[in-house]
Amino acid sequence: MIVRPSGNWLRMLFVWDGSVLKSIVPQLLLILAISSLAVATDGRIAGIKIPLDTAPFPLVGVSLAIFLGFRNNAAYARFVEARQIWGRILIAARSLTSQALTYLPQEDDGFARKLFVRRLIAFVYALTHQLRGTDPRPDLARYLNEEDLEHLSGMDYIPVALLDRLRLMLARAARKGQGPEQMLWMLDAQVGELAAAVGGCERISNTPIPFSYGVLVHRTVYLYCFLLPFGLVDAIGLATPLISVFVAYTLFALEAIAQEISEPFGTDPNCLALHAMTRNIERSLLEQCGQPKPEPVAANAAYNVN
Amino acid sequence: MIVRPSGNWLRMLFVWDGSVLKSIVPQLLLILAISSLAVATDGRIAGIKIPLDTAPFPLVGVSLAIFLGFRNNAAYARFVEARQIWGRILIAARSLTSQALTYLPQEDDGFARKLFVRRLIAFVYALTHQLRGTDPRPDLARYLNEEDLEHLSGMDYIPVALLDRLRLMLARAARKGQGPEQMLWMLDAQVGELAAAVGGCERISNTPIPFSYGVLVHRTVYLYCFLLPFGLVDAIGLATPLISVFVAYTLFALEAIAQEISEPFGTDPNCLALHAMTRNIERSLLEQCGQPKPEPVAANAAYNVN
Amino acid sequence: MIVRPSGNWLRMLFVWDGSVLKSIVPQLLLILAISSLAVATDGRIAGIKIPLDTAPFPLVGVSLAIFLGFRNNAAYARFVEARQIWGRILIAARSLTSQALTYLPQEDDGFARKLFVRRLIAFVYALTHQLRGTDPRPDLARYLNEEDLEHLSGMDYIPVALLDRLRLMLARAARKGQGPEQMLWMLDAQVGELAAAVGGCERISNTPIPFSYGVLVHRTVYLYCFLLPFGLVDAIGLATPLISVFVAYTLFALEAIAQEISEPFGTDPNCLALHAMTRNIERSLLEQCGQPKPEPVAANAAYNVN
Amino acid sequence: MIVRPSGNWLRMLFVWDGSVLKSIVPQLLLILAISSLAVATDGRIAGIKIPLDTAPFPLVGVSLAIFLGFRNNAAYARFVEARQIWGRILIAARSLTSQALTYLPQEDDGFARKLFVRRLIAFVYALTHQLRGTDPRPDLARYLNEEDLEHLSGMDYIPVALLDRLRLMLARAARKGQGPEQMLWMLDAQVGELAAAVGGCERISNTPIPFSYGVLVHRTVYLYCFLLPFGLVDAIGLATPLISVFVAYTLFALEAIAQEISEPFGTDPNCLALHAMTRNIERSLLEQCGQPKPEPVAANAAYNVN
Amino acid sequence: MIVRPSGNWLRMLFVWDGSVLKSIVPQLLLILAISSLAVATDGRIAGIKIPLDTAPFPLVGVSLAIFLGFRNNAAYARFVEARQIWGRILIAARSLTSQALTYLPQEDDGFARKLFVRRLIAFVYALTHQLRGTDPRPDLARYLNEEDLEHLSGMDYIPVALLDRLRLMLARAARKGQGPEQMLWMLDAQVGELAAAVGGCERISNTPIPFSYGVLVHRTVYLYCFLLPFGLVDAIGLATPLISVFVAYTLFALEAIAQEISEPFGTDPNCLALHAMTRNIERSLLEQCGQPKPEPVAANAAYNVN
Repeated sequence: MIVRPSGNWLRMLFVWDGSVLKSIVPQLLLILAISSLAVATDGRIAGIKIPLDTAPFPLVGVSLAIFLGFRNNAAYARFVEARQIWGRILIAARSLTSQALTYLPQEDDGFARKLFVRRLIAFVYALTHQLRGTDPRPDLARYLNEEDLEHLSGMDYIPVALLDRLRLMLARAARKGQGPEQMLWMLDAQVGELAAAVGGCERISNTPIPFSYGVLVHRTVYLYCFLLPFGLVDAIGLATPLISVFVAYTLFALEAIAQEISEPFGTDPNCLALHAMTRNIERSLLEQCGQPKPEPVAANAAYNVN
Repeated sequence: MIVRPSGNWLRMLFVWDGSVLKSIVPQLLLILAISSLAVATDGRIAGIKIPLDTAPFPLVGVSLAIFLGFRNNAAYARFVEARQIWGRILIAARSLTSQALTYLPQEDDGFARKLFVRRLIAFVYALTHQLRGTDPRPDLARYLNEEDLEHLSGMDYIPVALLDRLRLMLARAARKGQGPEQMLWMLDAQVGELAAAVGGCERISNTPIPFSYGVLVHRTVYLYCFLLPFGLVDAIGLATPLISVFVAYTLFALEAIAQEISEPFGTDPNCLALHAMTRNIERSLLEQCGQPKPEPVAANAAYNVN
Repeated sequence: MIVRPSGNWLRMLFVWDGSVLKSIVPQLLLILAISSLAVATDGRIAGIKIPLDTAPFPLVGVSLAIFLGFRNNAAYARFVEARQIWGRILIAARSLTSQALTYLPQEDDGFARKLFVRRLIAFVYALTHQLRGTDPRPDLARYLNEEDLEHLSGMDYIPVALLDRLRLMLARAARKGQGPEQMLWMLDAQVGELAAAVGGCERISNTPIPFSYGVLVHRTVYLYCFLLPFGLVDAIGLATPLISVFVAYTLFALEAIAQEISEPFGTDPNCLALHAMTRNIERSLLEQCGQPKPEPVAANAAYNVN
Repeated sequence: MIVRPSGNWLRMLFVWDGSVLKSIVPQLLLILAISSLAVATDGRIAGIKIPLDTAPFPLVGVSLAIFLGFRNNAAYARFVEARQIWGRILIAARSLTSQALTYLPQEDDGFARKLFVRRLIAFVYALTHQLRGTDPRPDLARYLNEEDLEHLSGMDYIPVALLDRLRLMLARAARKGQGPEQMLWMLDAQVGELAAAVGGCERISNTPIPFSYGVLVHRTVYLYCFLLPFGLVDAIGLATPLISVFVAYTLFALEAIAQEISEPFGTDPNCLALHAMTRNIERSLLEQCGQPKPEPVAANAAYNVN
Repeated sequence: MIVRPSGNWLRMLFVWDGSVLKSIVPQLLLILAISSLAVATDGRIAGIKIPLDTAPFPLVGVSLAIFLGFRNNAAYARFVEARQIWGRILIAARSLTSQALTYLPQEDDGFARKLFVRRLIAFVYALTHQLRGTDPRPDLARYLNEEDLEHLSGMDYIPVALLDRLRLMLARAARKGQGPEQMLWMLDAQVGELAAAVGGCERISNTPIPFSYGVLVHRTVYLYCFLLPFGLVDAIGLATPLISVFVAYTLFALEAIAQEISEPFGTDPNCLALHAMTRNIERSLLEQCGQPKPEPVAANAAYNVN
């Protein structure tokens, strides 16, 4: 995720890092070439004049507006939902920690409480790695003991398994009859909230926006931009490449951004900063336990937070 | 559901599997024929010149934009809601399993717990088959005993009946007074969540987008495309078929996609992968119980996951 | 509600039942007359040429798009919400039945349980009749005893009174101390859900979309269509009636559909099938109790489900 | 709120009560004057020809569509939310009454229960008057005793104070240990729902749509309408006043409606009928208690329900 | 936040305070200069005629409408969500106060209850200062004792730590077994609601709208406005600067407002009035406790409430 101050209006015009411009340069060069050719040949292909003017383009524009607007909204809705789910993970993890420290029995203080919070932090790391498709073991090893690691090895649904372990600890504490009466229900509700977050993340990961939309938008955008120079050349002559590339830039860039944010758990510059959010949860839980906490994740030179 | 990487921008232009192009080829050929005829006759029908130009089309375009935009959004909202309901089924089934394994009494361990989870998996299969209108018995027979199968035979609302059976098991366990105090309430809430999912799926299945919208959109789109060649022919001559087919492609394709995803439980390529999701729930629950799990459902050659 | 398969693309063009065409035929004939007159007089009224061309119409089109788009979305949102409330009624009624059969005490089995479910079914019928403004007594008499009917006579809020009766039964069962501990809370929550559904339906019924919107949309649409022929006649001559009626059809039809679905509890073809949904709830509850169930409501010859 | 049947399509064109036309007549006359002047002078101001044509107006139209569409949606969302909050007040007040009558202890029947419901009705009246900025004392005096009125005098948050009093009654009943076990929790939840409604109403009241939007929309609409006659006069001559006033009507009217409904607790014709809704709640609660109920609030001659 | 009556339609045209006009004056002057230059040179740059007309601008307008509409909606959604979260803080703080005063044990009345509410008010101040990045210590010192201040010093998540302290007080009261049975659960739920609000505010603060959108919108808007005079000059000559600045004003102003409200916790004129809302919560809680309350925050001369 790009985190940078928006700066004044003039500098914003020439931003490079954080713009999607770099990913669409080849296509823009192609449009530049086509439109220059159209100008040079006065709108001819193989000597035959292409009989277009600007009139048909607003007709396609209606479809284009619907497609791009829809796709962008759908992609952004996925991004926002993913972010909200991670916000709820932070909230539930904090509440679970707070309730465990406050309501769970005092006698076996120290070990059990700490183990509980350690497993909770490991859960967050496991989810991050599952969503990114990376190896969770190094991070898990920082918080879990040998037995836990063994139990999880070979499992496909590690975050779920860690939540089951947390529930087991709650069930044992409840059976001993210690803590206030409604204790189990209150803590179980937070575990349930975390389980809902896991399911929500998996849903976003596993079900993309229907593929056919992407194909349809893509084809319409490119065909529109390929035809545009031939429609403009009679009206605006030498300005054709400028306007064609400008229009193409707006369309290609919107498609590129929408593509990136529609998969919010990826590693593109406009995806969510999963690692920074995980670290933030870790830091907050450790502060609640009164333990030393690691540094927050910082942005790299291109203002990108991982 | 089509699951395939989006590939680079050039290959996306020529995708065949996962595009709706194949389902609208006949209509596009018709538009091609009409527009070629319009060019050949210079915009005449039976020798009479049709006095159209491009001016009226943006006027219809306003209505068209509202209709298509609305219909597409309404269809996608149904798709998203259906997917969210199935996400909640996964979440509730996992939580119910986790809570049953953790909080339900130990003594009659083994049998009762396993039966509980087996009935839960059978519930998910029963719902899938009800939504698709297929025969649930082969899948039910894998998880239910004779008595259960007998009880369900001839019933119209099988998933509801299976949830009632789960509630009965909870009631018996609660009456014995075993398990933590709030046990019944916590597990009943998950059963209630599953019941809400059944009702939500039935609602989407039984109440389509009002039929009149479909008729109105359909007529407007086709009449617009039939008239378009006669409006374009004076302005762009030989390019008329190209533009007419292009405009028709965007409109027909959007209508076709919207039609498919508005019935998300169907078997079209853009519908939900009910069987894959059911298998995923089955796998997750079995892993929670420490039992062997079947393979996930794979995509076919056309990238279609059922 | 119209329930009919969407058929192939050609037949959809000529559908009559389920289209709103029949309700706007007079207005379309008026536009046909006006536009024919405009062609015949070459755009004159009382001999004076109306100096319009197509340029002003897109300016009005901006407002028109906002009005129609808004009104249609607002109307559909009401339709969807009404349907979701009825979905929740089904869900809560089923859960209440399931919980009553499972958790309520055994000894006074038979009578009390059955009375409970009978009153629940009567509640659904009472709500349907209240929303439609029809007489509930014939349907209530099928499920309630004399004393209940007497108690309800003369009441303005019959569904509320029936829910109060259900709560009274729960309170008595709870006072006897039978059933699991959390029983009352779990069943009361379902009654509360049904009460929320009643309030939600009343809200949709009693608060229409602000009346001024309707007036504004209506005037804009009609004035636009009355002026259109005079704007088109110089440009497209004899095609003026065709285009004018086409544009008017799209606008009038959208207004007509939006009007129908904005009152989802009415009896127009695009309203909700309240009676079919009520029967469906009745059938499901009776199947849960193991009792014989009536046939579902079928569509009439015009594909209309009441 | 205007409550009137929408009538047939012809009469809707000439509706006066319930239209916002009356509030924008002066501005429309101004536009009529400007456009008549533009026709008379052939588009000159002080003898200098204003060199406008229709081409620039669609460019401003893009901004205009975004502004008006946004502002209208934002305003309507506030209206709908306000209505939903009042729907929830009805629901919670009914449930609280039902639960109090059913679950609260029997012995001090009569007084305590009735006092509870009287305070509840007083709460609704207090909220209405707070939102409208009117004096609540006459209505409060109908339902509260001297001690309550004294306690509330000089308070800024009267509805909150009345809810605190209801909670106090619940706490006392719970301390006596009468009624079912979960009684307190169930009734407290309804009080919490009412408290949430108070906070929701205050939020809508205290935080308008950001003021700058209003200024921006207003300026754009008026400048657009002032310039329009000079852009149209060369193209459509004598029809300029007609079209200018028509366009201005659609824009001014939409702005006026949006302004009214964005403050849904006001007393404009398109605001919510707070008094009618309050009376409806009062009537429903009194019927639940078996007490005589007042008449519903009726519409005045202009179809306006207060 | 600007709080001012909207006044009559004429005065709204010349409002200065509360308009974003002042922040975009430099850019508008630049457009004025460019368009004046275009008129003076008859659309030439360095003597070369720029061959533009108005035809290409509607093509860019499609993208522009999507970008600005999307960005504005996304920004407003953040504003509304932030406001709703603060509404929930008010609601939960009031309910927590009400429940603490009503249900918490009587004997250690006075001190413990007051301390509880004082910590609650301190929590709200701590959150305000965290979101604004200001020093919370002066406000915290008004409500917290030395020990609390010491405990919080050096912490990164002060609002979370204060909620943990509130939970600790609840846990102690519950362990003593005083108060009604469900007491802990009911009060813990309110603390959980406040914790959710903290997480929600942090989410809005930490995750801006993806940066690339801002860059894309900004570039498109400015390039569009820079090119516009050259497209208009042939058609409308001397009116070019007027129309260019008008169009630029609508686009720049919308971008500026959207930028301000997308960071609702900032201190720009269109941001939320955090301090006024905090004071309002403080006043309401103190009134509930029957203690003297401070004055509400007033608007400054520019109608700005902080």
